[in-house]
Amino acid sequence: MSALHQFIAAELRRRIRNGEIGVGASLPSESQLCEEFSASRGPVRQALATLRSENLVSSGQGRRAIVLDAVPAQPFESFLSFTRRAEITGYVPGQQLQEIALRRPEPEIAAALEIDSDDLAVQLLRLRLLDGRPAMLERMTYVEPIGRPLIDADLNAGSIYALLTEQGVDLHSARHTFDAVPADAADARLLDVPEGFPLLRERRLTTDSQGVPIEWSDDRYRSDIATVTVTNTRSARTAML
Amino acid sequence: MSALHQFIAAELRRRIRNGEIGVGASLPSESQLCEEFSASRGPVRQALATLRSENLVSSGQGRRAIVLDAVPAQPFESFLSFTRRAEITGYVPGQQLQEIALRRPEPEIAAALEIDSDDLAVQLLRLRLLDGRPAMLERMTYVEPIGRPLIDADLNAGSIYALLTEQGVDLHSARHTFDAVPADAADARLLDVPEGFPLLRERRLTTDSQGVPIEWSDDRYRSDIATVTVTNTRSARTAML
Repeated sequence: MSALHQFIAAELRRRIRNGEIGVGASLPSESQLCEEFSASRGPVRQALATLRSENLVSSGQGRRAIVLDAVPAQPFESFLSFTRRAEITGYVPGQQLQEIALRRPEPEIAAALEIDSDDLAVQLLRLRLLDGRPAMLERMTYVEPIGRPLIDADLNAGSIYALLTEQGVDLHSARHTFDAVPADAADARLLDVPEGFPLLRERRLTTDSQGVPIEWSDDRYRSDIATVTVTNTRSARTAML
Repeated sequence: MSALHQFIAAELRRRIRNGEIGVGASLPSESQLCEEFSASRGPVRQALATLRSENLVSSGQGRRAIVLDAVPAQPFESFLSFTRRAEITGYVPGQQLQEIALRRPEPEIAAALEIDSDDLAVQLLRLRLLDGRPAMLERMTYVEPIGRPLIDADLNAGSIYALLTEQGVDLHSARHTFDAVPADAADARLLDVPEGFPLLRERRLTTDSQGVPIEWSDDRYRSDIATVTVTNTRSARTAML
């Protein structure tokens, strides 16, 4: 935490997350914040601008800023890693590999990856953390030639996408399907929620620029900790199928 | 249902939705389908292509097509109405207006819309149906000047976006946040699910081309009936914030 404005933003973020300042409530005024943090207007305004950019608080427009949401929205972009998204939203990311296996995937996953039902694939189960709290559980399946090098890699160290890109894998396009599912036994244990707890699920099929499938993933988010945001405009219509 | 291929697609879609052909199971072969529907290869192949485009079944590639998902994914695009998305995915859309009211919105909604906390806004509660089944519950808030004409409109007839666009409203950009929430009492009653049932929630802030807020919405989907899909590519990165 190098600068005062970052410290102020982090502290206000913490109060919003904890519900000390609830959704719909006002933040303290700029002068109150200056006094509390022994700060001048500059760092206070910069901290408020950060929270606004995270959509946590309203723009104020001369009024006091109001809390819009207790959960910072993760900006959604293909190939923007969980780690990078966490950093953008002021969290410390973490990860715990639970399992990596070479096996025959479920028939619908084999079909989505366009491999034979008796072909092997590389499957990973990995827990992602935000500020040390379990936030997302990912179940990934890679076609064998792409996935094999992952078995020898240090998957707690960094981004799988970065690793694959370094190895020249052509991650080009992704189709994401969002729905809500009740936590199953494994979700509940690893994400530390009761069974049946509503989870945001993103299923993703990633292909190369020739349309050949590379990866299938089932990511389940505790949406009391992380949400997913998509922004688009009329003119971007062609980018959205 | 005008053509044989549409009839075949609809019938297979029905079996997939009902679970008669489960996720991971194979569809009948082309020859079996030809026999069952007294059809030639052309309509059968066209029906299978339709289901593939909806991502319900795999491409086959010489093998039998396999069921990938029981719920047709709704292609996600800003300003593409629920009605139009339903039609693309082979459903018959419907809607039931529950309430339209002029009132002071909740403080966080007023803040998101950048209006004063004692300004009035127009709020709607509307149930959306797919094939007669409750699929989505929308809670919309419009700033007063934009929303007022809706009070006199026939909101069971058509798309609100079409109506607003006709009146020259400049719907330009939208920010969508996805999470999962347990059904509350109103959700449960209208969507016909138990309280606590996991719902996919999309919160949306729509602005005009000057960035002025127009609409705030909270849409809750029964994701056993409808999911939301986003497709993107590396080159479209700039369109996705």
